[in-house]
Amino acid sequence: MTQAQRFLNLNVGLNTTGYVGPAWRQRRGSRHDIADPQYYLRLARLAHKGRFAATFFSDMPLLRPDAATRPLHTIDPLMLQTWLAGQVPDIGFVATMSSTYNSPFNLARRTLAADVLSGGRFIINVVANFVPEVAANFGDDPLPPREVRYPRAGEFLDVVKKLWLSWDPARAGAVPEGQFWDPAAEVIEADHKGRYFSVKGALNVPVSPQVHPVIAQAGGSDLGIDLAARHGEVIYCNILSRGAGEAFRAKVNARALAHGRDPAGIRLAPGLVAIIGDTRAEALRKHEIFTGAGSEDALIAQFAREHGQDPRDFNADVPLNWEDFVPAQDRVLAVGFTQGLVELLRHEKLTAREAVRRSAGNHRLVLGTAEEVADQIIDLWADGTVDAYTYQPPRAPDDIEEFVEKVVPILQDRGVYRRDYVPGETIRERYGLARPATGAHQPEPVAAA
Amino acid sequence: MTQAQRFLNLNVGLNTTGYVGPAWRQRRGSRHDIADPQYYLRLARLAHKGRFAATFFSDMPLLRPDAATRPLHTIDPLMLQTWLAGQVPDIGFVATMSSTYNSPFNLARRTLAADVLSGGRFIINVVANFVPEVAANFGDDPLPPREVRYPRAGEFLDVVKKLWLSWDPARAGAVPEGQFWDPAAEVIEADHKGRYFSVKGALNVPVSPQVHPVIAQAGGSDLGIDLAARHGEVIYCNILSRGAGEAFRAKVNARALAHGRDPAGIRLAPGLVAIIGDTRAEALRKHEIFTGAGSEDALIAQFAREHGQDPRDFNADVPLNWEDFVPAQDRVLAVGFTQGLVELLRHEKLTAREAVRRSAGNHRLVLGTAEEVADQIIDLWADGTVDAYTYQPPRAPDDIEEFVEKVVPILQDRGVYRRDYVPGETIRERYGLARPATGAHQPEPVAAA
Repeated sequence: MTQAQRFLNLNVGLNTTGYVGPAWRQRRGSRHDIADPQYYLRLARLAHKGRFAATFFSDMPLLRPDAATRPLHTIDPLMLQTWLAGQVPDIGFVATMSSTYNSPFNLARRTLAADVLSGGRFIINVVANFVPEVAANFGDDPLPPREVRYPRAGEFLDVVKKLWLSWDPARAGAVPEGQFWDPAAEVIEADHKGRYFSVKGALNVPVSPQVHPVIAQAGGSDLGIDLAARHGEVIYCNILSRGAGEAFRAKVNARALAHGRDPAGIRLAPGLVAIIGDTRAEALRKHEIFTGAGSEDALIAQFAREHGQDPRDFNADVPLNWEDFVPAQDRVLAVGFTQGLVELLRHEKLTAREAVRRSAGNHRLVLGTAEEVADQIIDLWADGTVDAYTYQPPRAPDDIEEFVEKVVPILQDRGVYRRDYVPGETIRERYGLARPATGAHQPEPVAAA
Repeated sequence: MTQAQRFLNLNVGLNTTGYVGPAWRQRRGSRHDIADPQYYLRLARLAHKGRFAATFFSDMPLLRPDAATRPLHTIDPLMLQTWLAGQVPDIGFVATMSSTYNSPFNLARRTLAADVLSGGRFIINVVANFVPEVAANFGDDPLPPREVRYPRAGEFLDVVKKLWLSWDPARAGAVPEGQFWDPAAEVIEADHKGRYFSVKGALNVPVSPQVHPVIAQAGGSDLGIDLAARHGEVIYCNILSRGAGEAFRAKVNARALAHGRDPAGIRLAPGLVAIIGDTRAEALRKHEIFTGAGSEDALIAQFAREHGQDPRDFNADVPLNWEDFVPAQDRVLAVGFTQGLVELLRHEKLTAREAVRRSAGNHRLVLGTAEEVADQIIDLWADGTVDAYTYQPPRAPDDIEEFVEKVVPILQDRGVYRRDYVPGETIRERYGLARPATGAHQPEPVAAA
């Protein structure tokens, strides 16, 4: 049955010049691309050609005046992808937004607007923010500690969901004679009074073709995983191996059950960096160049320094102990990133020389020929370790083009990847996620784009 | 010289079913239109065909569950028009947004994003909100009093402007060797510390093709006019006659000068409702039907009730005294709306029977054949009483279609109205407004859509 065919969903990250900072030196294009709408339109059309499930933008409400790298976050991802949605069909959109620096009403309204406008193609990646400098753009208060940000984010999403579900015209049967609508039947106010938020509602945007956006979650700390287990439908995480993936899923699933939630409604879509060469040796060489290291020795020295070791007396060829890399749960910066490496080392004995080739920007790195890259992608997906991947190209547009040209046809030939989109499919359907219940009186088509 | 040709700019209001509430009973279309993106796309294309300067959406972050009328504010206007901008060329977009319930950083970022994405076609109508129920969607605090909202809105726009101007890549000459960009030259942090806001900046969206969105202002109270004089470039106001318009402009200009601002940078674009008939009598009849009154007597009774008089002993045929209609400046609801009537009566002796035919929804009403409507529109524009109009159709799509079909060709034949858009023109250029200074190092094309 065609309908039961399970396809690999790949999202594709489209932030500015690509995911690996120093790789901008190897990319084609102008420095003005990073804020040029036409550049992103070209990338989105390329992503559509590559039959990606969705485009993905990480975000931070901050411009770091850092001359050593390129800006990674410019045009607001919700705005940019709403504009793209009017011009590129089928593909979904993942927009990262802050729960710390938005009000629930505004975020609920704008995201549901995007979902209505796109015909049900939005995933909202709600982040609690972890960079202290962000706070100064929103007043005099410092960034709240993780112990406040995450419970607050949990309640934030409770309110947002109530608002998203608050107006469903389909709850009304026939509208009473002489009335335009039937608010008594259609509208259920949020009426939320909690620890962090008080919001009356209702929202003045009705439910979308997929009821409301899919919720993605990306926090990797214990509190982040707890939030993911409570609200996340798509989890953007750092999974560097099968063992690590199995452990991560077990943890998320247990937490979901503890929250009374069915883990069947959760999809793991970790980040993945691919570097393709005509030979594996060429791919290794490109890895050294894209990262700015220049050689394997320099990659290893970078690794040592990042983990507080002196590169001069660092032995790259002895197995590493995972205990040496455990991040403090109370550290200010994101815990999830380093956690990926810990989980890798916990389940596999690796030397530093081996470990440096297993991740880029804290995400799983796959290196080799297009065939080898396709094999490695399929490997963890085929047995359900992961449900999807968020492909992060080292360079944009170059590595997206190469991936679409060389890897996608292999995935298609193996029968694991769509050759065409299903017309009218929402991103919720593409991810096989259940439609949220609205208590609708009768099925009725609403606002399809 | 073609370049010096001064054209009448008309914006067109596209909120849900049209501007006159009860007129939805006379419109074609489905009740689901009000949240259907394709409906708004059709309206925007119609507006483009009619060569309107810009589409206009008023807004309120509130759903009133009021069965007696239709919702007027649904999909967020900034989101909706950003989506439209990807599909409809040339036309500008006026998005209403709240300064009370947005943070300056988020509003600055999203609006500049919209402006970049549209190629410089956005006008931001910043409102301080006047409806108390809105507050309950944003916490436990009541709506701040006007004496706080307006000074706060003034500082809000100070910060927003600093943020809009904070990143201009053109300030850099050649980027230093080995660097992607030159933040030291490109970026000027907002570094704002004021009474209401503390915002560091910079914004992570660079300047748009028109530098930043045009600022519209709509408040009609004394404090609202003061805000308009300080920040407004396009003023959406209630001007019902020549005398009232002259008085309004004199007031705004005096205030602008008091703020050290050149009034030449201010455009008055008041609201205008047009009702067209094959004869004037037919137009009068349509007016009675659209408003739900049903007859001239009922229109007069409505007028009496709205102004706290008993319709049974109300004489519709004696001149009215403007002093009887002056709104208290401390009243909770919008002052500007009623002020329009006061100013009308102040400059013209009118009976209630005459006055009811001069405004609809508090805006100037023009009634008659298409020729008569065109004459009345041109009348106050030709001598510069007003600079533009914001046409509010009683019904959408019906009255927009009729206006485009019947009135626009007359305006074009009179030589006062564009037959085509100027390719690539920004909305700032269309309104003849000066480009904000950025201190750019050298002219350089940035992010043109």
